[in-house]
Amino acid sequence: MVALGFLTAIGIGTALLLLPVSATGQRASFVEALFTATSATCVTGLTVVDTQTFWTPFGQTVILVLIQIGGFGVMTVASLLGLVLTRRLGLRSRLVAAESTHSVGLGDVKRIMVGALWITLVAEVALGLVVAARLVVGYDEGVGHALWSGFFHSVSSFNNAGFSIYSDNLVRFVADPWVCLPLSAAVIVGGLGFPVLIELWRHARTPRVEGRRQALFTMSRWSMHTRLTVGTTAILLAVGTLFFLAVEWANPRTMGPLDVPGKMLASFTHSVMTRTAGFNAIDVSGMNHGSWFLTDVLMFIGGGSAGTAGGVKVGTFALLAFIIWSELRGDTEVTVFDRRVMPSTLRQALVVALSSVALVITATLFITVTVPPERFALDRVLFEVVSAFSTTGLSTGITADLDQWHQVVLVVLMFLGRLGPITLGTGLALRERAKVYRYPEGSALVG
Amino acid sequence: MVALGFLTAIGIGTALLLLPVSATGQRASFVEALFTATSATCVTGLTVVDTQTFWTPFGQTVILVLIQIGGFGVMTVASLLGLVLTRRLGLRSRLVAAESTHSVGLGDVKRIMVGALWITLVAEVALGLVVAARLVVGYDEGVGHALWSGFFHSVSSFNNAGFSIYSDNLVRFVADPWVCLPLSAAVIVGGLGFPVLIELWRHARTPRVEGRRQALFTMSRWSMHTRLTVGTTAILLAVGTLFFLAVEWANPRTMGPLDVPGKMLASFTHSVMTRTAGFNAIDVSGMNHGSWFLTDVLMFIGGGSAGTAGGVKVGTFALLAFIIWSELRGDTEVTVFDRRVMPSTLRQALVVALSSVALVITATLFITVTVPPERFALDRVLFEVVSAFSTTGLSTGITADLDQWHQVVLVVLMFLGRLGPITLGTGLALRERAKVYRYPEGSALVG
Ligand SMILES: [K+]
Ligand SMILES: [K+]
Repeated sequence: MVALGFLTAIGIGTALLLLPVSATGQRASFVEALFTATSATCVTGLTVVDTQTFWTPFGQTVILVLIQIGGFGVMTVASLLGLVLTRRLGLRSRLVAAESTHSVGLGDVKRIMVGALWITLVAEVALGLVVAARLVVGYDEGVGHALWSGFFHSVSSFNNAGFSIYSDNLVRFVADPWVCLPLSAAVIVGGLGFPVLIELWRHARTPRVEGRRQALFTMSRWSMHTRLTVGTTAILLAVGTLFFLAVEWANPRTMGPLDVPGKMLASFTHSVMTRTAGFNAIDVSGMNHGSWFLTDVLMFIGGGSAGTAGGVKVGTFALLAFIIWSELRGDTEVTVFDRRVMPSTLRQALVVALSSVALVITATLFITVTVPPERFALDRVLFEVVSAFSTTGLSTGITADLDQWHQVVLVVLMFLGRLGPITLGTGLALRERAKVYRYPEGSALVG
Repeated sequence: MVALGFLTAIGIGTALLLLPVSATGQRASFVEALFTATSATCVTGLTVVDTQTFWTPFGQTVILVLIQIGGFGVMTVASLLGLVLTRRLGLRSRLVAAESTHSVGLGDVKRIMVGALWITLVAEVALGLVVAARLVVGYDEGVGHALWSGFFHSVSSFNNAGFSIYSDNLVRFVADPWVCLPLSAAVIVGGLGFPVLIELWRHARTPRVEGRRQALFTMSRWSMHTRLTVGTTAILLAVGTLFFLAVEWANPRTMGPLDVPGKMLASFTHSVMTRTAGFNAIDVSGMNHGSWFLTDVLMFIGGGSAGTAGGVKVGTFALLAFIIWSELRGDTEVTVFDRRVMPSTLRQALVVALSSVALVITATLFITVTVPPERFALDRVLFEVVSAFSTTGLSTGITADLDQWHQVVLVVLMFLGRLGPITLGTGLALRERAKVYRYPEGSALVG
């Protein structure tokens, strides 16, 4: 059903982008329109044509609407699935206030939709205004265009889409904290996911009695999911920032020309954008190839569940890390903070991660085998594949140069990458059933 | 203890290779000797100097002895650990005949050592004689040198070491089934692992009563470990052969010049060598970059447990595949054929695979960041790192060009790759302990 909704949105979007009124010059080709509509709906941000010059304001509006539909759609559907799941399992849910029932009704759907709508609107309007104001004050843009640009980028970043109406994406703003920081904030907020946001919001509203007013900042009061998501996001942001700062410090094609605060801002911004927003304020094609590889890893991990971000999700990654940690300590069960994790949850995390690895490897193999290696080296192909799968949209610059069939592969990857992990993660959990008989145990050597 | 034994062997080997009598020309440098000794003891086969021209027959003999010690050492120690493990768990063990006791005594150690010694000797002598005979008949080599060469390559392939005393490794034999097939057979037999070999041997010796004479060829009579190992090995060999055949068919730098049987032999041989023997009969540096990437994947998976092969082991890979399969079917437990797999075994497989991925990614990142990208692209660095970690020894040709510090990184990788998965896989299982209290369950969203 979700997949059908996405396909419909992509279909209508492709049709609209094919209209002569969408393109400034010649009409878009079918693959160009399909690729752009998919990239927008799946909030990826990869492009085969230049968003600023190729599309008219009408075309750009189509893209923006697709981004909003895609981002909002995944956020609400994934939240709903998560709610069904926690209800089914009889676990305490913080997604909606009424916890008396174990089934999910229309009222819950409405609450989630309204809550997500509010969060989206507030974040997009507030941060859009900041960026628009900065464009008027700092760049002498007219108020009308500044508002359009501010909201375009605010919507694009809250939904982790990474589309920009500037040909150089955000490179011109690399040293401007008044643009980079609001957009980074929008990316982080959108990428944490609705369940985390709503929980933090509840804590913030909690009456100040019995010392509960500190709940917002007291991690031990958070749910396991929120702690995993926020904690892992913070760690990954820090690791990425420090790595890019160290490696790109003197790179003349990226951060070399910047002063020290500029280098720090650029490192932080790029680190945020790998949590799968995909804006680039520094030239990705000029980065150290080691930075490409770390970006691959960060993009693959992605953002928070039931949000606008892509990838296998930080929660999945954190669970796998905790499995290793528990096993190394010699525990028979996996505990996260002070909670046991159900074996079924661990298996789901494993399935999401491994099937994603398999998909990325297969797509990379297919493309690498069928392109000339001197133009499309493995590092570039892998980067593009991971970027499409994780719906990040960063690029080393080869997307537009690939032939149409390889672009279609990326279209499929964006679609699978957007819906696959969510469907697998929650779908498997919902479908779980008990077996009536058990086989005797067998053993196998490992390693 | 095992690690100490390996370090001692590497230390003595390094010292011997540093002697003037080991090198034909100038004495070896410390890193050259250390790298070669580690590569031999860890049965990897990566080289920084040419084995044929740089080392004297004395030096080559040191290498051969180190290979035999390393291969035999890992095979027996891992088998012993596996035996302790199955005894501890009270599971039926097929490693030794006496099953009355649940502890492992000196008698078991002796039985395993003797069994492994017999298998090693029989395989190495038989296949070495075939290769030696072929060298005399087909290549006009003197009997003495043919025997030396035959046994060197037989020992090197049974132990999955991949060292050759020819500068072009096996490229001159690419179309000669009388060399390629015996060496491939040695690689496969050595790589299946001692527990599998001993079980198949038992089945073959089973008296022909009550229809049991077919046990050798009836998979349903095999233990889970043997079925997983043999089945997965066969599938991976077939996939690799077909892939390399299709992709390299017309590549002028690899199989293009060969006739059709030659192409098939070369594809099969390369597919076998990625199960971590590391001989190359075709020029790896000339292969399609997609073939490199598939080779990466195959090398990483590796060979059978408790044998001479490296990698995370086919059993580990197969268990992960079965976890995905079970989860997709909606089962609450993972079953392989008709056996339940214990959750602890699954977690061990996961830990071995994920920590190996983490190690490979970290090493690749480190090397990629610190080398000039035009000379050492990601695909070449990744290939070399995976080859070292999985103790395969295939190379795109950059090992000798890396500076000394990066070579030392490869030395560390070979060591960790050789002992890490075994230690993790069996060590964790042995150390497992029950916890006296349980935390309440928590939930987290996945995907
Ligand atoms: K994106
Ligand atoms: K090897």
